[in-house]
Amino acid sequence: MSMPHAARQVWISEVGPRDGLQSIRTILPTDAKKAWITALASAGVPEIEVGSFVPASVLPQLADTAELVRHARGIAGLTVAVLVPNLKGAQRAIECGAHKITIPLSCSETHSLKNVRRTHAQMLDEVRGIAALISSLPQEQRPHFEGGLSTAFGCTLEGVVPETKVVALAEALIEAGCDEVGLSDTAGYANPAQVRRLTRAVWSAVGEDRLTGIHLHNTRGLGLANALAALDVGLRTLDASMGGIGGCPFAPGASGNIVTEDLVFMVEAMGLHTGVDLERLLQARAVLREGLPDESLYGFVPDAGLPLGFQPSAVS
Amino acid sequence: MSMPHAARQVWISEVGPRDGLQSIRTILPTDAKKAWITALASAGVPEIEVGSFVPASVLPQLADTAELVRHARGIAGLTVAVLVPNLKGAQRAIECGAHKITIPLSCSETHSLKNVRRTHAQMLDEVRGIAALISSLPQEQRPHFEGGLSTAFGCTLEGVVPETKVVALAEALIEAGCDEVGLSDTAGYANPAQVRRLTRAVWSAVGEDRLTGIHLHNTRGLGLANALAALDVGLRTLDASMGGIGGCPFAPGASGNIVTEDLVFMVEAMGLHTGVDLERLLQARAVLREGLPDESLYGFVPDAGLPLGFQPSAVS
Repeated sequence: MSMPHAARQVWISEVGPRDGLQSIRTILPTDAKKAWITALASAGVPEIEVGSFVPASVLPQLADTAELVRHARGIAGLTVAVLVPNLKGAQRAIECGAHKITIPLSCSETHSLKNVRRTHAQMLDEVRGIAALISSLPQEQRPHFEGGLSTAFGCTLEGVVPETKVVALAEALIEAGCDEVGLSDTAGYANPAQVRRLTRAVWSAVGEDRLTGIHLHNTRGLGLANALAALDVGLRTLDASMGGIGGCPFAPGASGNIVTEDLVFMVEAMGLHTGVDLERLLQARAVLREGLPDESLYGFVPDAGLPLGFQPSAVS
Repeated sequence: MSMPHAARQVWISEVGPRDGLQSIRTILPTDAKKAWITALASAGVPEIEVGSFVPASVLPQLADTAELVRHARGIAGLTVAVLVPNLKGAQRAIECGAHKITIPLSCSETHSLKNVRRTHAQMLDEVRGIAALISSLPQEQRPHFEGGLSTAFGCTLEGVVPETKVVALAEALIEAGCDEVGLSDTAGYANPAQVRRLTRAVWSAVGEDRLTGIHLHNTRGLGLANALAALDVGLRTLDASMGGIGGCPFAPGASGNIVTEDLVFMVEAMGLHTGVDLERLLQARAVLREGLPDESLYGFVPDAGLPLGFQPSAVS
């Protein structure tokens, strides 16, 4: 390929330990989580969202996030990300040394009120508080601070979310002090045309360097098609979840996040480069399977195997 | 959208009655097949591959193809397609009045020998024989004649299939008298970059009007991403199978063809136009489910439902 190396690089952010585990009933023991995170990093996954600093009463599955951040920080080269719902969560994340913190802002205010009982204005206040906290830190201790635009492609409560609203909230997040915004298809409503259109609209408002990533669900089977659209338009950070865990239990086969294994296969097969070793990624899946023997793990590549003669992308 | 109407039109060819039913053990009774075909056509599916003229000893599931062609011919506006392995099959297809006949030519000669015990040269002889037969017919009785380039994206026996070989076979099929060629990802090996590259390569050799369609499998989960790549590059006929039937029984979740329901949802959500009514398509799925109570039906949209506020594409 004639593309320069940087343009071929795709950054995979594994969100299974957070978005996957928060959506299933089983509480994976801390040691099993650590083993899984270590196995993911060993496969070359460059970034892992290890948990969320929400009250343990709300999400007991993620009560050990602080310990996981400290564990993951000990893995050389790994970017350790966490979700924070508010300033208090950000303080805890910073104390533990997370490299990246993401605060979700639901573009659907109905969803925001239902999910975190806060209006957009209240959430932007939290963002300003976190930005001020980060600014007060020495440069080398400052985490990367992202505002996640959830329900950006539509909402199960509000239905269509106007793109002008998403763009306005992206601008508001950057003005309030986020380094970057991300687009999140919380409800699995996105389609490829919308991914391209909304990405370009947000870029026009805040600049291309302020939006590089997307978080996709596979609820309606369009997850990898939307990922392809994101890659085509030029997004280079893709969230994914090993085994697509967190699938909706009342809709068999309707997985949650896009499946890391399938995404890495697609990206590598296309001649783009993830830095992830597919064979070792499947070993990490075995570690997860051992920890979650009774949960559904999704993914086509783990079942079908790699094509005969398949060559992953080589760095040229 | 500013795209002209013709550019927005996507032609869905339902291949479940052939490619789906040939891959499962259950033999769907002829009346159930007729009811399903009628329901598919009522939903607006413009083309249905109703069967294959192979010996009943080889595929007893498709022994009633002649009767199905006659039934489908009675449905106004429907294009009735069949697969034929050879001249004899083409004769039967023409006798019944099929509108479109497709002969598969496996780009992997190893696969061709194993599957139909014929070399490329022998298959091209069959093609020439069929083309001569068609030429001998009055103009209004001539079916559209397509050569399907199976294993075009790789083969489970040969592995990588060189693109130069696919292009050469496309040229040979056109020279031998096919009206058109189609690309077929028999093994589920394709990736989006390859779909675009190979389409353009074949176009360069035989012209854009000689390749308008693609047949994709979802073996490794990339089916809809590959469909998106096909739409992006400009292919406008997509094969799909209701419920993705024909999934590999030893790889749970690894469906066969791309799922019609999910494909139509993606295409319509993107603002392209299929002419298929999604609600009525789900009714056709219920008809299929009734006929195949014990087989797995795949698809995400049937489980998850349409997004709140979803509007199918309108013809502008």
